[in-house]
Amino acid sequence: MMNGLMMHCNLNITSIMQHAMMVHADQEIVSLKSDGVSTHRYTYKAAFKRVAQFAHVLDQLGISFDAKVGTLAWNTHQHMELHYAIPCTGRIYHTINPKLQPAQIKLIILDARDEVLLIEPECVPLLNQFYEEFQSFLKYVIVLGDIQNELMAEFPFQFYEALINIQPECYDWQDIPEQRASGLCYTSGTTGQPKGVLYSHRSTVLHALIMSMNDAVGLHRSSVMMPIVPLYHISAWDMPFNGILCGAKLVWPNQFAGQTEKLVSLMQAENVDISMAVPTIWTAFKEYLSNHPQIKLNLKRAISGGSAAPLALIQSMHALGIQIENGWGMTETSSLGAINRTQIDQKNFETQVIKCGRPVFGMQMQLRHHDGHLLAHDGVQEGILEIRGHTVVHQYIHTSAQQLSRQQAQIEQQTYGQWFDTGDIATIDTHAYMHITDRAKDMIKSGGEWISSVEVENAAMGHPKILEAAVIAVAHPKWGERPLLVVVAKENQTLSHEEMLMYLSNHLHKWSLPSATISVKEIPHTPTGKISKKHLREQYHDYFQQMDAV
Amino acid sequence: MMNGLMMHCNLNITSIMQHAMMVHADQEIVSLKSDGVSTHRYTYKAAFKRVAQFAHVLDQLGISFDAKVGTLAWNTHQHMELHYAIPCTGRIYHTINPKLQPAQIKLIILDARDEVLLIEPECVPLLNQFYEEFQSFLKYVIVLGDIQNELMAEFPFQFYEALINIQPECYDWQDIPEQRASGLCYTSGTTGQPKGVLYSHRSTVLHALIMSMNDAVGLHRSSVMMPIVPLYHISAWDMPFNGILCGAKLVWPNQFAGQTEKLVSLMQAENVDISMAVPTIWTAFKEYLSNHPQIKLNLKRAISGGSAAPLALIQSMHALGIQIENGWGMTETSSLGAINRTQIDQKNFETQVIKCGRPVFGMQMQLRHHDGHLLAHDGVQEGILEIRGHTVVHQYIHTSAQQLSRQQAQIEQQTYGQWFDTGDIATIDTHAYMHITDRAKDMIKSGGEWISSVEVENAAMGHPKILEAAVIAVAHPKWGERPLLVVVAKENQTLSHEEMLMYLSNHLHKWSLPSATISVKEIPHTPTGKISKKHLREQYHDYFQQMDAV
Repeated sequence: MMNGLMMHCNLNITSIMQHAMMVHADQEIVSLKSDGVSTHRYTYKAAFKRVAQFAHVLDQLGISFDAKVGTLAWNTHQHMELHYAIPCTGRIYHTINPKLQPAQIKLIILDARDEVLLIEPECVPLLNQFYEEFQSFLKYVIVLGDIQNELMAEFPFQFYEALINIQPECYDWQDIPEQRASGLCYTSGTTGQPKGVLYSHRSTVLHALIMSMNDAVGLHRSSVMMPIVPLYHISAWDMPFNGILCGAKLVWPNQFAGQTEKLVSLMQAENVDISMAVPTIWTAFKEYLSNHPQIKLNLKRAISGGSAAPLALIQSMHALGIQIENGWGMTETSSLGAINRTQIDQKNFETQVIKCGRPVFGMQMQLRHHDGHLLAHDGVQEGILEIRGHTVVHQYIHTSAQQLSRQQAQIEQQTYGQWFDTGDIATIDTHAYMHITDRAKDMIKSGGEWISSVEVENAAMGHPKILEAAVIAVAHPKWGERPLLVVVAKENQTLSHEEMLMYLSNHLHKWSLPSATISVKEIPHTPTGKISKKHLREQYHDYFQQMDAV
Repeated sequence: MMNGLMMHCNLNITSIMQHAMMVHADQEIVSLKSDGVSTHRYTYKAAFKRVAQFAHVLDQLGISFDAKVGTLAWNTHQHMELHYAIPCTGRIYHTINPKLQPAQIKLIILDARDEVLLIEPECVPLLNQFYEEFQSFLKYVIVLGDIQNELMAEFPFQFYEALINIQPECYDWQDIPEQRASGLCYTSGTTGQPKGVLYSHRSTVLHALIMSMNDAVGLHRSSVMMPIVPLYHISAWDMPFNGILCGAKLVWPNQFAGQTEKLVSLMQAENVDISMAVPTIWTAFKEYLSNHPQIKLNLKRAISGGSAAPLALIQSMHALGIQIENGWGMTETSSLGAINRTQIDQKNFETQVIKCGRPVFGMQMQLRHHDGHLLAHDGVQEGILEIRGHTVVHQYIHTSAQQLSRQQAQIEQQTYGQWFDTGDIATIDTHAYMHITDRAKDMIKSGGEWISSVEVENAAMGHPKILEAAVIAVAHPKWGERPLLVVVAKENQTLSHEEMLMYLSNHLHKWSLPSATISVKEIPHTPTGKISKKHLREQYHDYFQQMDAV
């Protein structure tokens, strides 16, 4: 067979930076300061000078050339800079969610063995208890900000601004092979144990390119994008890469994702026309804007992901002149893998608009019946959603391919190789709109964060009065979903919600605590003896709505 | 160093087809029939059924799995289908310009050794004289159309529609490695001798993806694109791939690129909003629309390439509601590599809008002084334009890298490897707008076709009365440029234009014939003894304008 005779250039993150420097150097990046009011603003050109400066810092500190460099940080220009300085020197950025339970953060850092941690000043107390356990691998902790003398006493911290300040503004960027690892993000997974997804330069650049298409996000030079979704959630759905590749003006809202008034002010001031967040945020937006009809925003598109935005929210936002577009993705798909951008079938608008959307280029999807055969894409048949693509995980870090297709052995002999089993149950209609009908593992998505039902159940089962416990996700007007705990008490025992909470608060992070506990005589079971969550969900699906009504 | 752990999927043309089938199956493709009035229309879904059918044909005819399959064809749905059926079975499509001189077509086919030729019925007489010379490699000639009995007598032709008609509409597409060759296109080059550029699946898919960006072509599902530029010119600037990737409605104008009235009717009927052609076509459009003010078109964007559209044309079209966007590319860059899509610097609109535009993602550009050092991108300094990118030729087929950078040996030791020397002299300004100030090799671009000045000069020098001859490109109101022949006759000899034409018509294709011959006593020379074309161009730059005035 004959190969083409075109140049081989590497699809690396450096090439995004170099393109942006060539054609978008004067574009603006705005970042809300920690006071929640004033802003930091500079150009792409100035940003990439600081990227070069931090690249020198990493070299001079003697950080290994394939080190993992962890971040516990908000949506700021500094955190964005790290998405270039780290991978463009061959190292691996590793975003860590500062809002996780401390024990989980510790676990993730122990697993990744980060040589450097870059942390917000607010995260100092959180980590202080763990440094001794990291001493075999952790070389430096760099606080994102100026020198703070009161911190110096606690730990030999470095300070980001002081470090980069003295460095040259140019760097001799190497041409990194495209298959090299560029970033690491842990998923909460389905067992409650985080698993690391290791992105490559190639997967990152292809994802950024694919997101540029008009049927995906389709930013352009005159777009003003505010990523509300945190950078520690799959790099704010690719915005450091896709946003800069497209030359958009970027507006980073710091840690104020939950403060609607601040977000709205920033949107007004910066003329934001497109944004990304979980449905919980958009619900708060809708309420805020409805209560403040005098506020006029230029926001046209609100990409919503993490869980599907319901029809009522989509319609309310539409009335406010804002189009909510459901997106779908996972840590394992480098964020967005499908998006509900255009409505093909206007007749069925209401059922179509709430779906996850259509696959982006390069994302292949198929539905598999439990018995192994593939199902038709007719919008009716439900099957296990299997995916394949440039931006899909092949295997987790430090693990064998735990969650690859159940039919892996069989499929590997086929032409198209292996598929990734998402663990979701879905339908795909004739226009390729994918709709998730169930989460195979019953995870709870609350306020944009996953809660493992298994973890809560395990904790509840530890209570001496409990015979059986099941946790299900129940729709919640504010948080999207909240965990509902259903228990069977041991004979002659009774148990209140308050008693349960007191017990669980010693074992669980605050937000994982169930919002209600229901004591029943018997929990329904499947024929094979497992708890039938399907039954429970049907029985209690409007439990928090009812509570609200009361 | 650590590699990422994401799936490797091949960037192959098959993946464009499969994505389009999944999400855009119901989109429409329209093709003007050879009567110039009626249209053929079908969906992507129907198109790819025929693609599968022709894939079976290629297999059943026993065509080698890496064969080159030549096409001499117009802008039709059939020719578009070939852009999938051939490469998605691992073979190499090879577009040949039917309007080239027959001797040049022969040369190209002899060089490529096409196993199959797919030709329009009109091309039958053209090729009939050559088949014997092709018999060592050419297995089949397939006429694009239904069976025509009168042709059957001349040669054992096959007929496209009859061949595919009986085939199954599904095909088991293989997953072709991305580095495999997918297509071949010969450039007229700078020496007058055609050179083949061999595209890979990877370069083709990346080009299509990059063209999808809003700062490039940026099509979307509701776009209606009519590629007037022929498919034999770098595959109509990528529209079979980029257009289908984006799910646009495609409108193919058959061989009627030169018939403005037909194009305008088709645009009206199909609601075309974006189109691509050389400036000559747009000049004709402008005149036609100015003379028919009652005609209303939905055309918004006219991408212009091949040579730079002048300011007057851009302004006249703007007055008609149509934005002309200059683009730049070469056969060696897989078509568009820069485009003048947005005006960054409104103060300098008039000087900026006539430039070639800004490089698309992945296209690196640098300017090199003749003495070897790199020049600043300040919009003033002129240097040799060198480029590098995913979609840039590495070497020509059957040749060593004839035209690679003059500093190749030096540069190969650098990080970024070799660059391609375009042979053009250019400036690049601070906003990355590239502007070609001279063609290093003095090619003449007439009506969208290249004419080699060297070829015309060599022919003229064959005339017994000629002492010296120089051919330059002179601006022409209709054709963009036309060749002007400047000669010095031998002592005591005189020579008229008519006499020269009579002689040259035996040696040159009709359109390469100079539009005027000027007899002079002396031709200016450079200090090193070469003809100073710069001088001649200055002296005769408005020659055809003056003639027009007379």
